[in-house]
Amino acid sequence: MSKYWSPIVSTLKPYVPGEQPRMANLVKLNTNENPYPPSEKALEAIRAAASADLRLYPDPVALGLRKAIASRYGIGAEQVFVGNGSDEVLAHTFAALLKHDRPLLYPDISYSFYPTYAGLFGIDAIEVPLNSAFRIDIADYRRTCGAIILPNPNAPTGIGLPLAEIERLVAEHPDQPVVIDEAYVDFGGESAMALVPKYDNLLVVQTFSKSRALAGLRVGFAIGQRPLIAALERVKDSFNSYPLGRTAQAGATAAIADEAWFEATRGKIIASRVRLTADLETRGFEVLPSQANFVFARHPAHSGEKLAAQLRERAVIVRHFAKPRISDFLRITIGTDAECASLIGALDDIL
Amino acid sequence: MSKYWSPIVSTLKPYVPGEQPRMANLVKLNTNENPYPPSEKALEAIRAAASADLRLYPDPVALGLRKAIASRYGIGAEQVFVGNGSDEVLAHTFAALLKHDRPLLYPDISYSFYPTYAGLFGIDAIEVPLNSAFRIDIADYRRTCGAIILPNPNAPTGIGLPLAEIERLVAEHPDQPVVIDEAYVDFGGESAMALVPKYDNLLVVQTFSKSRALAGLRVGFAIGQRPLIAALERVKDSFNSYPLGRTAQAGATAAIADEAWFEATRGKIIASRVRLTADLETRGFEVLPSQANFVFARHPAHSGEKLAAQLRERAVIVRHFAKPRISDFLRITIGTDAECASLIGALDDIL
Repeated sequence: MSKYWSPIVSTLKPYVPGEQPRMANLVKLNTNENPYPPSEKALEAIRAAASADLRLYPDPVALGLRKAIASRYGIGAEQVFVGNGSDEVLAHTFAALLKHDRPLLYPDISYSFYPTYAGLFGIDAIEVPLNSAFRIDIADYRRTCGAIILPNPNAPTGIGLPLAEIERLVAEHPDQPVVIDEAYVDFGGESAMALVPKYDNLLVVQTFSKSRALAGLRVGFAIGQRPLIAALERVKDSFNSYPLGRTAQAGATAAIADEAWFEATRGKIIASRVRLTADLETRGFEVLPSQANFVFARHPAHSGEKLAAQLRERAVIVRHFAKPRISDFLRITIGTDAECASLIGALDDIL
Repeated sequence: MSKYWSPIVSTLKPYVPGEQPRMANLVKLNTNENPYPPSEKALEAIRAAASADLRLYPDPVALGLRKAIASRYGIGAEQVFVGNGSDEVLAHTFAALLKHDRPLLYPDISYSFYPTYAGLFGIDAIEVPLNSAFRIDIADYRRTCGAIILPNPNAPTGIGLPLAEIERLVAEHPDQPVVIDEAYVDFGGESAMALVPKYDNLLVVQTFSKSRALAGLRVGFAIGQRPLIAALERVKDSFNSYPLGRTAQAGATAAIADEAWFEATRGKIIASRVRLTADLETRGFEVLPSQANFVFARHPAHSGEKLAAQLRERAVIVRHFAKPRISDFLRITIGTDAECASLIGALDDIL
């Protein structure tokens, strides 16, 4: 603490991202990165953007990128908001759409950045417990609230809600913004984007970090009707005019157009998830049914914390959350088949 | 307005950046970009970062870049905070250090993003008028306040304060954070960075956008003692873990090390400023004494608004502010010698 701090600073509980270890030769299955390189077309576009024109500011409204995203999803560019990773998009969303007199609702077991955002923006929030199967039950959201945000598929469980359930949730709260955080949707979930024309209270957030393998580039986006997008634009233009540099805009624009790369890569990851799930179940793990690029698993005879530590001794890094209800679980990113084999080999050594 | 908006959204007055026109063949002297390409070493580093590793998150604490900045300025990396352009660094600074019970002070004629930040974060602010020569008089800041921020050199005037005056200001406010925004300091101003070891209330903010010719990459930084930097880190880690992608970190790290490029380029710009100032004065302009990569000039017989419009008709874009006290001025970025000649030619045509 310091007398120079704005008072809010001492109240913050910053989000702690998964470790980015600087050691080589690790099997890194802790931050849900894509195990495959990004589209070569995206890399070429970034290299081309590394030109004399970097002396110039980027397009502050990233029109080319927004048009490319809009074209991919069959909507208008004015319905697309882009930001520096979906984390920045979410931060602006909390500020612009989720602070009301009545509380914000989100799941108790969910993206652990949500409570941090709520703290930063002074938003009163209620954590709605997942049911005993670690599923979101939308009946539990039938309560007085100012807004709702939830991931679909949820993280760290990986469990997705069917589109019909999402639509019911959105329809049941016509006076509240409902934000569906679809960071992992491309690995088998059902996107709510198709509902955007029908519901003016729905905002869908996605990212280039996972299914586009561009975590290192920092691009995320939101899709919604104009009043919601306009709110995000007003906050963004009050915070940072140019959050996406020229290399980020160029790379993401090329990435979203590379449908062949996208389909091939997510197909491989989904297939690996099926195999890894079976391999873990064979070894006695309970694996929650995942629609994401990770699985959430626990072993009846081994604590999650200890397993994570023992894996780390064998150069395999997974994520463990020392939190109520889920402290026995490991969140394991789907790696390449070789990485999954290393994980299984290390587990065989431990168990 | 929308019932879905957080109440603050309708109160915001977003910053409007200088236009980034999409037409070719313009002489673009409106957003204070560097007229020369960035360091080739920076471009090479960005191209090298456009690799398979973009699938991985960047280093959230940007240690390599912070070490490179620290090495350049002879301080410790723990005294360096980096962000997505100095605009994001400033946004976090307003949130983390400038919101207090007593008002924030900044000049009435200054970076026009400051009132926007104050509005976004609900900070009570007082605009302290420049004196009649358009200079900051630090005696005017001897008043009850919670914090102070000012650019040095100031924008859009270009006028710098000597280091001794900055030190007096910082020393006179031992209980308040004092932020010196040095976006333009490398073009002839005196940096307050040397005062950081002596004053725990001083934060110095700089950018790669101007003197490093990397406006398109989005990298800015702040230097201060640990308690101030820690406050910025806490807010950043509550907002977006990874604001600087891998290409930005790589490019900026290489750029800060290229001292030969830096000295040659800023030398050329300073020399062009001397010539452009003389050429404008020859044509009857009053030109404020600039230490920046732009000049602020007015003509006794021509309105600023009209001149700006007439220049635009001749494909020369400069910045005009329709604001009290300065509406007769044009802010003209120092271009290449050819661009400066085009501006002067267009003025000769108009005048």
